[in-house]
Amino acid sequence: MSMNSFGHLFRVTTWGESHGPALGATVDGCPPNVPLEPEMLQQWLDKRRPGQNKNTTQRNEPDAVKILSGVFDGMSTGTPIQLMIENTDQRSKDYGEISQTFRPGHADITYFQKYGNRDYRGGGRSSARETAARVAAGGVAREAIKALAPGLEIKGYMTRMGELEIDRSRFDWDAIEQNDFWIPDAGAVQEWEDYLQSLRKAHDSVGAVVEVVARGIPAGIGAPVYGKLDTDLAAAMMSINAVKGVEIGEGMNAARLKGSENADEIFMGKNGPEYSSNHAGGILGGISTGQDVVVRFAVKPTSSILTPRQSIRKDGSAVEVITKGRHDPCVGIRAVPVAEAMMACVILDHLLLHRGQIGENQGHIG
Amino acid sequence: MSMNSFGHLFRVTTWGESHGPALGATVDGCPPNVPLEPEMLQQWLDKRRPGQNKNTTQRNEPDAVKILSGVFDGMSTGTPIQLMIENTDQRSKDYGEISQTFRPGHADITYFQKYGNRDYRGGGRSSARETAARVAAGGVAREAIKALAPGLEIKGYMTRMGELEIDRSRFDWDAIEQNDFWIPDAGAVQEWEDYLQSLRKAHDSVGAVVEVVARGIPAGIGAPVYGKLDTDLAAAMMSINAVKGVEIGEGMNAARLKGSENADEIFMGKNGPEYSSNHAGGILGGISTGQDVVVRFAVKPTSSILTPRQSIRKDGSAVEVITKGRHDPCVGIRAVPVAEAMMACVILDHLLLHRGQIGENQGHIG
Amino acid sequence: MSMNSFGHLFRVTTWGESHGPALGATVDGCPPNVPLEPEMLQQWLDKRRPGQNKNTTQRNEPDAVKILSGVFDGMSTGTPIQLMIENTDQRSKDYGEISQTFRPGHADITYFQKYGNRDYRGGGRSSARETAARVAAGGVAREAIKALAPGLEIKGYMTRMGELEIDRSRFDWDAIEQNDFWIPDAGAVQEWEDYLQSLRKAHDSVGAVVEVVARGIPAGIGAPVYGKLDTDLAAAMMSINAVKGVEIGEGMNAARLKGSENADEIFMGKNGPEYSSNHAGGILGGISTGQDVVVRFAVKPTSSILTPRQSIRKDGSAVEVITKGRHDPCVGIRAVPVAEAMMACVILDHLLLHRGQIGENQGHIG
Amino acid sequence: MSMNSFGHLFRVTTWGESHGPALGATVDGCPPNVPLEPEMLQQWLDKRRPGQNKNTTQRNEPDAVKILSGVFDGMSTGTPIQLMIENTDQRSKDYGEISQTFRPGHADITYFQKYGNRDYRGGGRSSARETAARVAAGGVAREAIKALAPGLEIKGYMTRMGELEIDRSRFDWDAIEQNDFWIPDAGAVQEWEDYLQSLRKAHDSVGAVVEVVARGIPAGIGAPVYGKLDTDLAAAMMSINAVKGVEIGEGMNAARLKGSENADEIFMGKNGPEYSSNHAGGILGGISTGQDVVVRFAVKPTSSILTPRQSIRKDGSAVEVITKGRHDPCVGIRAVPVAEAMMACVILDHLLLHRGQIGENQGHIG
Repeated sequence: MSMNSFGHLFRVTTWGESHGPALGATVDGCPPNVPLEPEMLQQWLDKRRPGQNKNTTQRNEPDAVKILSGVFDGMSTGTPIQLMIENTDQRSKDYGEISQTFRPGHADITYFQKYGNRDYRGGGRSSARETAARVAAGGVAREAIKALAPGLEIKGYMTRMGELEIDRSRFDWDAIEQNDFWIPDAGAVQEWEDYLQSLRKAHDSVGAVVEVVARGIPAGIGAPVYGKLDTDLAAAMMSINAVKGVEIGEGMNAARLKGSENADEIFMGKNGPEYSSNHAGGILGGISTGQDVVVRFAVKPTSSILTPRQSIRKDGSAVEVITKGRHDPCVGIRAVPVAEAMMACVILDHLLLHRGQIGENQGHIG
Repeated sequence: MSMNSFGHLFRVTTWGESHGPALGATVDGCPPNVPLEPEMLQQWLDKRRPGQNKNTTQRNEPDAVKILSGVFDGMSTGTPIQLMIENTDQRSKDYGEISQTFRPGHADITYFQKYGNRDYRGGGRSSARETAARVAAGGVAREAIKALAPGLEIKGYMTRMGELEIDRSRFDWDAIEQNDFWIPDAGAVQEWEDYLQSLRKAHDSVGAVVEVVARGIPAGIGAPVYGKLDTDLAAAMMSINAVKGVEIGEGMNAARLKGSENADEIFMGKNGPEYSSNHAGGILGGISTGQDVVVRFAVKPTSSILTPRQSIRKDGSAVEVITKGRHDPCVGIRAVPVAEAMMACVILDHLLLHRGQIGENQGHIG
Repeated sequence: MSMNSFGHLFRVTTWGESHGPALGATVDGCPPNVPLEPEMLQQWLDKRRPGQNKNTTQRNEPDAVKILSGVFDGMSTGTPIQLMIENTDQRSKDYGEISQTFRPGHADITYFQKYGNRDYRGGGRSSARETAARVAAGGVAREAIKALAPGLEIKGYMTRMGELEIDRSRFDWDAIEQNDFWIPDAGAVQEWEDYLQSLRKAHDSVGAVVEVVARGIPAGIGAPVYGKLDTDLAAAMMSINAVKGVEIGEGMNAARLKGSENADEIFMGKNGPEYSSNHAGGILGGISTGQDVVVRFAVKPTSSILTPRQSIRKDGSAVEVITKGRHDPCVGIRAVPVAEAMMACVILDHLLLHRGQIGENQGHIG
Repeated sequence: MSMNSFGHLFRVTTWGESHGPALGATVDGCPPNVPLEPEMLQQWLDKRRPGQNKNTTQRNEPDAVKILSGVFDGMSTGTPIQLMIENTDQRSKDYGEISQTFRPGHADITYFQKYGNRDYRGGGRSSARETAARVAAGGVAREAIKALAPGLEIKGYMTRMGELEIDRSRFDWDAIEQNDFWIPDAGAVQEWEDYLQSLRKAHDSVGAVVEVVARGIPAGIGAPVYGKLDTDLAAAMMSINAVKGVEIGEGMNAARLKGSENADEIFMGKNGPEYSSNHAGGILGGISTGQDVVVRFAVKPTSSILTPRQSIRKDGSAVEVITKGRHDPCVGIRAVPVAEAMMACVILDHLLLHRGQIGENQGHIG
C-alpha cells in the first residue's frame, strides 16, 4: 500500500533515503497562480537543516531544494510540483556492523521485520532527514495559504526540553525566532544552552515538547467526523519521527478538568463570536472556531547516544551498541520547523476543502 | 470532500444523526469467509450503550444492530457490510430554543459556521451517538482479526477520571470487565463511584484518560511514513468525540526522559526479539515490535451540564445556557468500548495491508 | 480493499445484494443546503425499475427509496446521506441447483474463484439490481448540480439495439422520454418493439449502445492526468454491469480519421470560444471545452436466456444451463437511467473539484 | 485535488512537463525484494522513445531513467521509488506565438480555461512526453509481476492505422516485436510503412487502434463493483493522451450480438475451467476468468499537422494554425509501449489487492 502520502486535496508524497542520491517531495494539488521560487522554500530548509549552530548535529549539507516541475515563470501551474534535495554529504564509511545490528529505540529492527530488506545507511528511509522534504512541501503550502487566507500565521516553539519548561508568564511571540531553541523567552536561552551542553558532555540526549500555533484561521474550517481538523493535525504530528504524544488545546490535562472549568464561554464581538478562553485549542467538533489553533507534541530523546545499550544482531547474537557520529542531543529542536510545515500543509488542505465544500452556504452569525 | 470514512483496506464509513430514523456503518473491505452474526456485534454495542448503569445516561435504547448486506449464511462474502441501528427513543420535544442557541464547548457553533444548516436535535451528526456505528464496525473487525491473528486481544480501561488515577501497582487485567468504569482495580471501584455521584450532584462533569492495549500483535505490522501504525491510531482516537490528546507508550512524558532511560534494550528470546521495557508502546518507526501496543487518550469533560454558562444565539444575542436532559457526568466511561473498536479497525486494516505488501519476504531474526 | 466506492469529493458507496433485506448507497460529500426530498430521487428510480413496461422484466418492486440521514427539514446538511431501498419481492424458491452451478457469461464463477463464498440468490452483489442504488445517488447529484451549474442537462438514449440503429438525421431530443426505449425517434419505436418481441419469442437476448450527453457544462471542468473527465466517465460507464466498451466523442471511429478531419476548429463566439464540430466529445486533455460532453457505451446481451448453454458445477461436472425467470431481453434499455446517474455523479464531482481547485484563477479568453 | 496518481496499492504519480528540467514518476507501494536496476526500466523507455525510426518523431533524447530512491543493492526496499528522466533536448526557440495561441484539438485551450496559467512549451504537462514516466513505472510493475505471477505476459500491438487493419487470420504473436508498428503480421509491414509515408507527405496524420493482451493471469483477480479489473483498465487506457475509446473483449461489437452468441460456454479442463470462446475478454463481473485479458483502444490522429486549421488567440482574435516541428504522423505507434505499461501497473495492483483480500479463501472448482 502506498503509505508515503498525506493530505486530501493538497497531497504530499515524500521519497528518498538518508544516504541515497536525493530525496524530495511530490506535491500534487497546489492551486495554480501561486508565486513560487526556490528561495521561498529554501528559507524554511535553512531554518531546519543541521550544522546551523552548536546545538544541532554537525552534518553540513546545503540542503538546496530544486523545483523540477509544476512551476512556470515563477508561478504554480496547478500540475504536480516536484521538489528535489540532493544528498551531497554522504561520507563513505564501512557499514558492515551497522548492516547487521539493530540499534535500540530505532526503526532498524521493525523495518527489517517488515521488509526483510532495508537501506541501513544512516537510518535510510526512517532517518529524520526525510523531514527536509516535508519542510520544502510546507514552504509551498505557506505560499498558497498567503493567497487563500491572508494574515494567517503559523509559528512553532519549544515549551519543554527535559527538565526545563518555559514560563508562560514571560511568553514573548517575537523572541521565538531570535534564538536557537525557538523558545518564546529570550531570558531563558542561556539556561537551555547550558542544560543541552551538559547532556552532550554526559553522552546523553533528552526529549522535548513543541507547540505550534496557527493564528488568523477562519472559523468553519475542518470536517467531521474522520477528517476533522484535529484528527488530521494529530496524524500529521504523530507521523514526525520520534513523536510519542499529541495534544490539542488543553490536551491530556483535559482529563483533570470539570465541565464548568473547561467549556469556553461565547460572547458576541464586533467581528463575530469571541470566547472567554481557549481550552478547545481553536477546534470544536473537528471544525475551527476562529481562535488560535494550538497543537502540542512530545518528541522522545534520540536513541543515538554514546552511552552503551544492549541489543542483538540479525543472527540473534547479543551486541552492545554505542552510536557514534553526528547526532542532536535534542531532536526536538529541529522538529519545530518540521511541525510548522506539517501544520501549513494540513491547514492549506482544509482551506481548499472548505472552498469546494460550501462556498457561500456558510452560516452567518449576528 | 467525503470525510466520514477511515481505513485503507478495511474502510468504514459511518452515517446518521442522533435523532434521525437510523444510523450505521458501511464496512467495505472485510475479507470473505469471516463468521458474522448480529449477536457478535451486539455484545459490543451492549457494552457501550447508555442506560446500562447509573454512571451513564438514562436514555434507554436497545441499539439493536441489523446486518443488511455482505453476509450470507452467517459468513462474510467480501462485499460491503451495511450495519444499521434504528433510533427508537426519539422523545418529541420543542427544539425552538436549541435550534437558535450555541452550547459552549459543543460543535453547535462550528457546524453552523461551516454548513449553515445542521440537524440540531441532540447534537445531530456531532452527537456521541455516532460512536455506536463505530462499535458495530469494530465488532466486524474483531471477528476478522480472529481469523488473521489468533490470540490477538484488545482491551481498554480507564486510568484517570478527574482527580482519581489508577494505582499501577494494583493493575488487574481480569478486573476490567467486572466493573462499570472498566478500571483494572476492583478495590477502587467504590471510590470512583462516589466521586462520580458527587459530580452529578454538583451538576458538573469531569474528564478522563482511557488506555487501550493490543496484546499478541505480530512484529512488522505498520507502514512508514504517513500510514504509520501510531499515526493511524492517533487519528483514530482523536476522531472520537471530546478527545483532546493521544499518547503512544511513554507519550507526553517522553519529553522528560533522557536517551539512556527511554530506549528499550533488545535481547534474543526463545521466539524472537524481546525488550527490557516498553517505552515505545510497541511501535518503532511506525511498525509494530511485537510488544503490547499501548495507546492512551484524554477525554474532556462533557460540556452538557446543569451549571449555567454564557453563550450567544444565531442572531448574536447573549444567552445563558443550561443543558438539561440525559447526559453522562463522565463521557470517558463510554469512550472505552469505542476506543477498543477503533483500535480493532486500525489493527485489522494493517494486518490486511501486511498480507498484501510483503508476504513471505518478511525479515527473519536469529 | 474497499472497492465499492467511486468519486473524489462526491463519494458514493453502494451496498447490498439482489435478494438481501435491502440495498442502498452511502453518499458522502454532498454540499449542504441542497433541497432533497425522497420523491426527487424516486422519479429516477421509477424510470429505471423493472415491471414498467412489457419490454423489461416483470419483477414488480416499488423500489421505494428512504433517506435515513444527512437531510434535515428537506435540505442536505453536508453530512453523509444514506439511501436505502428495501427488497420486497424476494420470491422464495429452491436455490439448490443455482448454488452449485455457474451460468455462462455471468460473474458466478469469478466471484466464487475470488471469494469462495457468494450470495448466489439472483446474482447477489453482481446483480444489475445494484444499479438501483446508483440511480438514487445520481438523483442526489442532479439536485446538487442544479445549484452549482443551473441549466446543465443530462440525457441518455439508445442508439443501437442489436441490428437496429437510430437514424441520426431524424434525431429528436424531445422524443427520448416519450417511449420505452429512450430513443430519439418516435417513428422508430414500433420497429424496435417488434424486434425485441421477436427476440423474446426466440428465447434470446441482444446487446445495445447507449449514448449520454451533458449539455451546458462549463468549460474548464476536469483534471489531468489520471482524474481526467473522460477517464472518470470511462470508469463510471465501464463499472455498469454488462458494459464492454466506452467511447468519448468520435470514439473508436477516431482511429479511421485523419488529423485534418478530426481536429475541431475554434472560433470566437459571443460568449466565448465556439467549435466547428465536436469530434472531441466536449473534452480536450481531460478538461471540458464547454461543448456537449458525449459518452457512448456498449452493453452486451444478457446471458440469462432460455436457450441452453454448456457449463460446469462447483464440483467440475458438466451441466446444461437454461436461465428461467424474469429477465430483460435487452438490459441496455435499463442501462439508460443508470448511465445518466453515473454521469451526474461524475460531473458533480468535477464541479466540486473545480470550485476547490481554482476559483477566480480561471483563465479568461477574449 | 491531486489527480496525477493512479492505482490502489501500487500507486504511481507522474510529474513533469515537456520542456522543464525533468519529468518522472513517484512509485509507492512496490513490494520489497524485487530486483531492480535502471536497465530493466530503460529497455521499455527505449522501445517508446522518439527518434527510433523514421515512423516516429525525430526528437532525439536518450530518455535515460535514474532511480533516486527505494532501491538498495539492486533490490526494492518497499519504500517509494523515484524515477527521474532529465529533459536534455530542449531546443531554445521563440515561444511568443505559441504562448498566445490555442492549437485546435489540443489541450492548450482547456488548460488555460481551467488554470489560467500553463507551461505552453511543447504542450507542457499535456504533452505525450509525460507517458515516458508511465513507461518507467510500468517497468517496475513488470519486475514485481515476475515475482508474484511468474509466466504472466503482457503484449501490445496495433490492429488498425487509419484505413489499414490487421488480418486476424495471419496473426503472429512473435512478429510483433520485429517491426516498427508492433503489428502481428510481418507480411503487412511494407504496406503500413508506405501508407504512413504518404500521410507524412500529405502533411496529415491518422488515428489507430491498439490492442493489449495479458496472458497467464490467474482467475479471481479484480474486485466489484467500482474497482473492477475492466473499470481500472478502461480508466488506465482512457488516461493516455489522445485515446477516445476503450473496449474489453468483444467491445462495442457486443451491442450487435445475441445472448446465444455472446456467452462463452464453460467446460472443465485439466487445470480448471476452460471456455469455448473469449467474448468476455477474460473478465466477468470485473474479475478475471483466467483467459487472456484483452483490452483495445482507439487513438485519435494527432492534431499537430502542417495542414492549416482555424483557431483563436488568448485575446479572442482569429488565427490560422500550422504546427511545425517534430511530430508523429500516427501517435498510436508510440501508444503501444505506454499501454503495456499501464496494463502492467493495473495488473500488479490487482495482484497485490488479491493477496491482501483473500489469500487461502479462494474458491476451488473441481
